[in-house]
Amino acid sequence: MDNTKSLLLTEDLLGLVTDLYQLSMAAGYFEQGMRDTATFELSVRHLPENRSYLVAAGLEQALHYLTHITFSPEAIRFLQQLPAFKHVSSAFFESLKSFAFCGDVHAVPEGTVVFAGEPILRITAPLIEAQIVETYLLSTINFQTLIATKASRITQAAQGREVVDFGSRRAHGPQAGVLAARAAFIGGCKGTSNVFAAHQLGIPVVGTIAHAWVMAHESERDSFKKFHEVFPDNTVLLIDTYDTLAGARRAAAIGKGLKGVRLDSGDLLKLSGEVRRILDAEGLQHVRIVASSDLNEYRIDELVRNGAAIDSFGVGTEMVTSKDAPALGGVYKLVEQVRGDRAIPKMKFSPDKATYPCKKQVYRKKDGGGNFLEDVIGLEGESIDGIPLLTQVMKEGKVCYPTPTIQEIQGASSDNLVHLPKPFKRLSNAEVYPITKSNGLERKRLEAEKIIALQNNE
Amino acid sequence: MDNTKSLLLTEDLLGLVTDLYQLSMAAGYFEQGMRDTATFELSVRHLPENRSYLVAAGLEQALHYLTHITFSPEAIRFLQQLPAFKHVSSAFFESLKSFAFCGDVHAVPEGTVVFAGEPILRITAPLIEAQIVETYLLSTINFQTLIATKASRITQAAQGREVVDFGSRRAHGPQAGVLAARAAFIGGCKGTSNVFAAHQLGIPVVGTIAHAWVMAHESERDSFKKFHEVFPDNTVLLIDTYDTLAGARRAAAIGKGLKGVRLDSGDLLKLSGEVRRILDAEGLQHVRIVASSDLNEYRIDELVRNGAAIDSFGVGTEMVTSKDAPALGGVYKLVEQVRGDRAIPKMKFSPDKATYPCKKQVYRKKDGGGNFLEDVIGLEGESIDGIPLLTQVMKEGKVCYPTPTIQEIQGASSDNLVHLPKPFKRLSNAEVYPITKSNGLERKRLEAEKIIALQNNE
Repeated sequence: MDNTKSLLLTEDLLGLVTDLYQLSMAAGYFEQGMRDTATFELSVRHLPENRSYLVAAGLEQALHYLTHITFSPEAIRFLQQLPAFKHVSSAFFESLKSFAFCGDVHAVPEGTVVFAGEPILRITAPLIEAQIVETYLLSTINFQTLIATKASRITQAAQGREVVDFGSRRAHGPQAGVLAARAAFIGGCKGTSNVFAAHQLGIPVVGTIAHAWVMAHESERDSFKKFHEVFPDNTVLLIDTYDTLAGARRAAAIGKGLKGVRLDSGDLLKLSGEVRRILDAEGLQHVRIVASSDLNEYRIDELVRNGAAIDSFGVGTEMVTSKDAPALGGVYKLVEQVRGDRAIPKMKFSPDKATYPCKKQVYRKKDGGGNFLEDVIGLEGESIDGIPLLTQVMKEGKVCYPTPTIQEIQGASSDNLVHLPKPFKRLSNAEVYPITKSNGLERKRLEAEKIIALQNNE
Repeated sequence: MDNTKSLLLTEDLLGLVTDLYQLSMAAGYFEQGMRDTATFELSVRHLPENRSYLVAAGLEQALHYLTHITFSPEAIRFLQQLPAFKHVSSAFFESLKSFAFCGDVHAVPEGTVVFAGEPILRITAPLIEAQIVETYLLSTINFQTLIATKASRITQAAQGREVVDFGSRRAHGPQAGVLAARAAFIGGCKGTSNVFAAHQLGIPVVGTIAHAWVMAHESERDSFKKFHEVFPDNTVLLIDTYDTLAGARRAAAIGKGLKGVRLDSGDLLKLSGEVRRILDAEGLQHVRIVASSDLNEYRIDELVRNGAAIDSFGVGTEMVTSKDAPALGGVYKLVEQVRGDRAIPKMKFSPDKATYPCKKQVYRKKDGGGNFLEDVIGLEGESIDGIPLLTQVMKEGKVCYPTPTIQEIQGASSDNLVHLPKPFKRLSNAEVYPITKSNGLERKRLEAEKIIALQNNE
């Protein structure tokens, strides 16, 4: 009777985790004998609402995917029976049996602050390979970058007070909760409630009790006492199940062994102050106050500015869905194609969606203190002042740089944000960070535009 | 050098895909010898912005999880070394070795229209089991319900024209794209571009070419011709890479073998009309026009009302992130606990987050034509007019109902929406559907409130 499906992704079927048109185009390139090498760049066309910068994230999972994508016999069978593929030769399906990604990848390291129009990732590979991987790369980098960015705004607002991720239950499915936990850590969170994420990533896992614990006992007092018996070193008690201030007094009755209390409803500013006084009156100055309940950067900013007695913020829904700007519009565009020994610049002209051709590099100019001054988007290899942001991370399908630890990535993100001057990172009404295109790039664009117009002039 | 991690979820580690506090509470219940049976209900406290109903979805993946969750030796080792669990006895970890969910589940069938406050799922199981599974159940049902609801609004706006899911690249990670494809189909989409989702679910997979195909060729005309050679039966051409109307004329040159064209930028109303005229002038009345580009229910409604010459809408970002309301606030609350042979009603009083105790049922009253009149949230087994929405789907850990096909679920959702009267499903300014609580339930609440207040009265 049970024929339920998990919809968990599995490595053997990674080849199918893409849009059909990538595979149609791959089949088309194959059938037409197009074995050109192509370069695609992934960038974000416009920053989302309320965002003035992005924190790049997701590269590690993108590289894992590139090193593991294959087409299993089952995947190939499925494609072969699709009506749309009826006229595709068996040679194409045969070729999928030995499919492996063998291209080069350049990327901005995770944790780097980037802006609209700047390539975050660049793939140079046989056209077919570069095409098939688009969807997974976009989904991976779009989402983690979205959440790392949101988390960085939230941790900034907290001004050094702890922020932890409580969002799994509201994330877009079970895997999104795990990816969000990673990205939130990159954006400055101190830990996550997601145990799987903590296990995989080696980051701190946090949390103690929910309302159910309190409700499952005869009385709140009894529930607090019982929890303390089992977790004497980690007694953080949720005190708002029935009446927050009465709950605070009952928690205080635990005495020195109490580690913290959590507020999850009501006026957090007012309640945190009152709870602090109750705890302090009992000599429990060491007890930390954790607050949760629909928090975001704006509410945390208000709480912190008004001196709320909160030591740690548990943030869920708003962070893991990036609620005020829940999508990142990353795109992946063909910019160059090598046929024989000729590199052909590629661009499109679609209204509001036109692209720049050629392999690009981002050059970041900094002052003596390392503060960001401006970025120039230029050609790869162009002689431009500034530190190039894209570095090679994969060579012929193999990871070729020391993959950083998640702690190192968090450090990079924090360091980047410290050096992004204040006007560009204000929570609201931030200034637009200065970005220009190099003369070399503008020249290439004009040239390419002319050639393509000519080719299409019929 | 390569130590990248996939962050794909695996069945052997499903026990860890939860919030730490669920496991802390489980350990606490275990250590305190609390072997009570508990009933938890999953419901949505308030409807999200711009929503007047929900389409329930995600049950199948929830049930799959419940039948597959275990704690592998690796998972247990990880938990055992957590500092927070230092004082937990080895007997608890030993018990996890044989952990299996053996409870009962009642649920509203997928595709059913539900409203705020109505239980969508109810779990009755040993307290420990019911507690651990909370996070995964919430994340699964919150997300799919969110997207099925959004998709139902979008397909309604399309008034019978086809809508397909193109959203994987902007979904919240690779698995979210797959879950969104399923939920979008439930909400009325005709297919998805996600090949893995199509493979797993047996739903139509759609899509032909992207701009890269056009750009990868010497000229747009050449690219169209080449694609038609490989896909003579499925030639849907993207025509906006350089100039949409010129693209339409080049596509028309394919002749009778052309199946469709796609617009992906610009003024879709104006362009679709112009493209239709170009196609018709060549006798290509059969060629379909597909449109994509940041579509949502509001834009589709406007296009349809203004008579846009569009046969199929490809919807991505806005649907798979439910962009205008990207989170569903489902909660999972303890409502009853059985100790020995005594059933104890449970509720919490937190400001704005208070709950109703006891096992509940939703009774839907309909008129002679099957149209929904009102819902009553009452007690399970209470004698109330109306059709009960929750049915038993799992008994002692085993699925005990014939799991419907995805096509049947889509049919149920469509049937539900047909019978939801218009005022309650308008895209904007919809009326609030009438829901009342039964007298029996209100009485139980007052009783429980009194008892709990007394127990906490110190």
